This record gives sequence, C-alpha cells and structure tokens, in this order.
Amino acid sequence: MQLNTIYEPVREDLVKVEQWLKSESRVDFLWLSMLLSHSMEGGGKQIRPALTLLCGKFYKYDIERLLPMAVATEVMHLATLVHDDAIDKSSVRHGRPTVNKLWGTERAVLLGDYMFAEAGYLTTTTKNLRATQIFTTTLKTISTGELNQSFSAFNIEQTRENYLQRISYKTASLFAMASEAGATLSDAPEEAIQLLREYGHNMGIAFQIVDDILDFIGTEEEMGKPIGSDLSQGTLTLPSMLLLERQPEDNPIRELFQGHNVRENIKRAIELVRNSNIVDECYAYATEYCDKARQQLQTLPEGRTKKSLEDLTVFVVSRKR
Amino acid sequence: MQLNTIYEPVREDLVKVEQWLKSESRVDFLWLSMLLSHSMEGGGKQIRPALTLLCGKFYKYDIERLLPMAVATEVMHLATLVHDDAIDKSSVRHGRPTVNKLWGTERAVLLGDYMFAEAGYLTTTTKNLRATQIFTTTLKTISTGELNQSFSAFNIEQTRENYLQRISYKTASLFAMASEAGATLSDAPEEAIQLLREYGHNMGIAFQIVDDILDFIGTEEEMGKPIGSDLSQGTLTLPSMLLLERQPEDNPIRELFQGHNVRENIKRAIELVRNSNIVDECYAYATEYCDKARQQLQTLPEGRTKKSLEDLTVFVVSRKR
Repeated sequence: MQLNTIYEPVREDLVKVEQWLKSESRVDFLWLSMLLSHSMEGGGKQIRPALTLLCGKFYKYDIERLLPMAVATEVMHLATLVHDDAIDKSSVRHGRPTVNKLWGTERAVLLGDYMFAEAGYLTTTTKNLRATQIFTTTLKTISTGELNQSFSAFNIEQTRENYLQRISYKTASLFAMASEAGATLSDAPEEAIQLLREYGHNMGIAFQIVDDILDFIGTEEEMGKPIGSDLSQGTLTLPSMLLLERQPEDNPIRELFQGHNVRENIKRAIELVRNSNIVDECYAYATEYCDKARQQLQTLPEGRTKKSLEDLTVFVVSRKR
Repeated sequence: MQLNTIYEPVREDLVKVEQWLKSESRVDFLWLSMLLSHSMEGGGKQIRPALTLLCGKFYKYDIERLLPMAVATEVMHLATLVHDDAIDKSSVRHGRPTVNKLWGTERAVLLGDYMFAEAGYLTTTTKNLRATQIFTTTLKTISTGELNQSFSAFNIEQTRENYLQRISYKTASLFAMASEAGATLSDAPEEAIQLLREYGHNMGIAFQIVDDILDFIGTEEEMGKPIGSDLSQGTLTLPSMLLLERQPEDNPIRELFQGHNVRENIKRAIELVRNSNIVDECYAYATEYCDKARQQLQTLPEGRTKKSLEDLTVFVVSRKR
C-alpha cells in the first residue's frame, strides 16, 4: 500500500502544504529562517495534514480553511519533535542532525515555542473558533502525555492501561485533532465530526504502537534514528511490557532501568523481543485499533476519500518507517 | 507610588485573576497539579493582567471576556519564565527554586508548552478572534526576541538599536499585547486601541530597561535571583553597552565575553557601573519611554483609570524589584 496512492484525492493540496512549510522560513532574521527551513523541510510522511484534508473531503471541501489547518497540524507536530529531541538530547531525526544538535538546546526550545505560536496563528486564519480550541486543547493534552512519560520514566511498574493512556495523550490526540478539524472546517454534521475524530484517535493509537514496535525491529537506516531509543530514555512501551510479563526474572529491562549495563541490556532486550512472538502480538494489538478506526467510517459517504482513509489504516501497520 | 493604589480600579478583578491561576492546578494528574501550582503561584507584580483590565476599563468593561484574557496574559508570561529558567539553567526565581531546579529541564520545557496552550485556550474563550491572533502573533514575537538574544550572546559588537529591537520583541510585545487585548475586548474605538497598544509597548521598553538596571544595582534579596545574571548569560544590556562605550580599553565585559575570569569580571563590571553615572543615564532613557507612554493617554477619557495608567509609568521606573 503506497502513500502516494492513498493520498491521491488530496495530492495537489498536500503539495501546497509542503510549499507553505517551505515559505514559512521567509522571515526577517536570517538565523530564524535557517532554523525554520531546517525543521520544516524534513520531508516526513505528512500523515497528519493528509488526515485533515481527507477528513475535510466528505462534505464542503473548503481549501481556503483546510489548507492553513493542515499546515498548522504539521507545524505543531514538527514543533513537538523539536522539543522532544531537545529534551531527549537526540542528535539524529529522519537521518538528519536535530536542531538541538546543530544549534543547542536553548534555540531548539525557543524555536519550538515559535512554531507552536505559528501553528496556533494559522488555526485562527480559518476564522473558526472551534478549530483553534481543538488546537489549544490538543497541545495541552500532548504536553500532559509527554509529562506523563517523563514522570513514569524508568518505572517498571506500569500497566497496559498506563501505556494506552499515555500514547492516547501524546500521539492519538494529534491524529484526532487533525481529523476533527478537517471535518469541522468542511461543515460536516456533528455526528460525522465525532466519527472522524474517533477514527483519528484509533489510527493514532495504532500508529504509536507500530512506532514502538519499529524501535525494536527497525533498522537505523530505515528509521533515521538509533534503534532502542525508547529503552534508553526509560520509556516502557508495549513490546517492553510484554517482555517483562513473559520473563519476570533475569529481565534485561529490569536491569537496565536499575542503571546496570545500559548498552548491553538494550541489545539483549531487542534480541529477546525479536526472537519471540511479542512483535506479532503487538501488531495484532495495533490491527485491532485499525479495525476500530475503519468501523467509524461505515456510515460516511462512499467514494474515493473513504477508500483512502480505509487504506491508510492498512498502511499504518504495514509501514517500515 | 504603591501598586495597591494604582491597581485600585481593578483590584477586585485582579483577585479573581489570582484565584483563577490557583484553580488552574485542579487537573487530573497529581504531578501536573504540583507543577502548575508551583509555577502559577509565585506571586509576581501582576502588572500584565493589570494592564489588560485597566485598558479594558475606558469603554465597555466586560469582565466575562477581560478576565480570561487577563489570566491568559499572566499565564503566557509565567510560561516564558519557565522556559527562560530552563534554558538559562537558573535555579532561583522570585526567591523560590525554579521548576527546572526542582523537576529538571525536561519537565520545565513540557510544562511551559502546557501553559502556552492553556493561555491560548483561555484567549479563545473570549470568543474574539482578534484576541487570539494578538496572542499567537505575540508569542511568535517573544520567541523571536529570545532567539535573537541567544544568537547575539557573548557578542560585544551590538548597537543600542539591536538592544532596543531585542527588548521590544522579548518584553514590550507582551505589554503591548496585554494593553491592546484589554482595549479590544472592551470594544474601544480602533484609535484608542492603537494608543493603548503604543502605551503598553513604551511601558514594556521602560520596564525592561529598569530590569536591566536592577540586574546591576539591585540586591539578591530584593530581586529574588542572583545579580549580574545577564552578564553571566552573555546578554549585553544598556548598562553594559554604556560601560563598553565609556571604557573601550581594559573593559571587564570584553574580557568576560572572551571567557576570562568570569566571576571576577562580572563583579568588576557591576562595581564600575555602580560607581559611574551610567545608572542615571539608563534611568533617563527609561523615563523617556515612560513619558512617551503617558503621552499616548492624552486623548483618552479622563478619570481614575487614566490616572492609574499614568501612575503606573511612575511606578515602573521607581520600582526596586
């Protein structure tokens, strides 16, 4: 399942999103322009702006309002990455040096603030108060999720519910926002807005579970960043939890979280997960959420857009990066 | 000039602002509540929310809209402090340990993000799009000013124009926002909105110049943080610039910015400034901006509110912390 094919109904407008992101760096200060172009032109999957545009395609497709919202969604996402990398002291993202690596933590924090503000401003240009409210509420939710992750780092005593809540806050909320905002700005009926929001939420959960799997089974080249980074940050994800459940004694994660032989224990944990059926079980989990996402679409108008949103649920679990 | 007297026309509503700030910490997670109450209840001068309320008092004083905006202004200010302290690695603010000191840089960055989002959300509850646009534009401006400061750190070749531009971005923009938003939300005529915005802008410049003076002549007890912190961050402020102009040779700031004998050179710079008429000259500079601020008020309706805004310009230069 190719993203190009899935994005077909909104392909032209996704190109406009990309152009907009590039034009963001036309600002007064050379250094700001440099920081913005570095962080805005990473060339990600654009899954979030695609969600906004696709979810805006069922009813009145008003590109004047949808375009700034789609851009806002991506800018917000990129801003969270800039802050994440700064606080995790990550040096590589999408195969490129991070902002904090190139210009230091201080500039990364301030650039992220600038980008959040820019994203917020873009939502106001839709002249739809609800769009801005969804945006600000979501940023609160994401920050809460990230804080939750920080406060539970290196804590071995976590339940799957803790995990699901955390990824719901830190990842699924943005997918839900992208979808809800797209539907809202196309004057969809309230029922459709809620269904598409729920679709986005479930997609976001599945997306994050797959992200967490890929941190065990991906390659550094595919991922564009080191493997095992969650464990090195002390973040317990679904694969780690399953490994802890299955092997409560002599578990490398337990030792790692106690600060022993960090590198070796990460390597061992990755090997144990790869050589078990944990990966399959995690994928089954992700697939469940994709199924739930697809179910939300049942009553929505048939057509190319619906097909794309359905196919996107397949892409999310099949992706390699 | 006592702040209590100046705030008299809006005193009751300023109490509501404070209550609101305290109630912000009623959230789902105990750790979030803990972080919020620590950062929201520092008990500052509340000069920014006071500006919003006072500037909203000339025309239709609609507390339903002004209150959330006043709170947003203060929350935004507090969020910038949380981020500033995190990136400057400051350990004390208002005589209390900073968020980053107590809980680490990571949590401080994420808490600041949460607070920005909360402030943005509050502006949307005014249901006035312009208020939210002023807010987001201002946050971009502040971040640009802070980035500017970061990129010009330890650079001895700076003009007064550079300095004024920087403090206009990082400080005066928020004062201008507080005033403009207050006027806007009270349905003031556009001309009055612009005058009050200009009032706020000039007040903000004066306020920052005085802040920069106090970093040389204040005491650690009065300021609630170490003296000379600008110099130790490599930030060139007006007093430093004047010292460099007057004593181009054998200047402690020049040596300090080259990384030599940091502590000793800061101490020497402070002494040299204190024992010169640089402080007077800086105060004269600040007073000029206060005069400009006062001039903006001329055509506005006479009364208690106008008197308060006039008195506030006097307070800003006379304050000791």
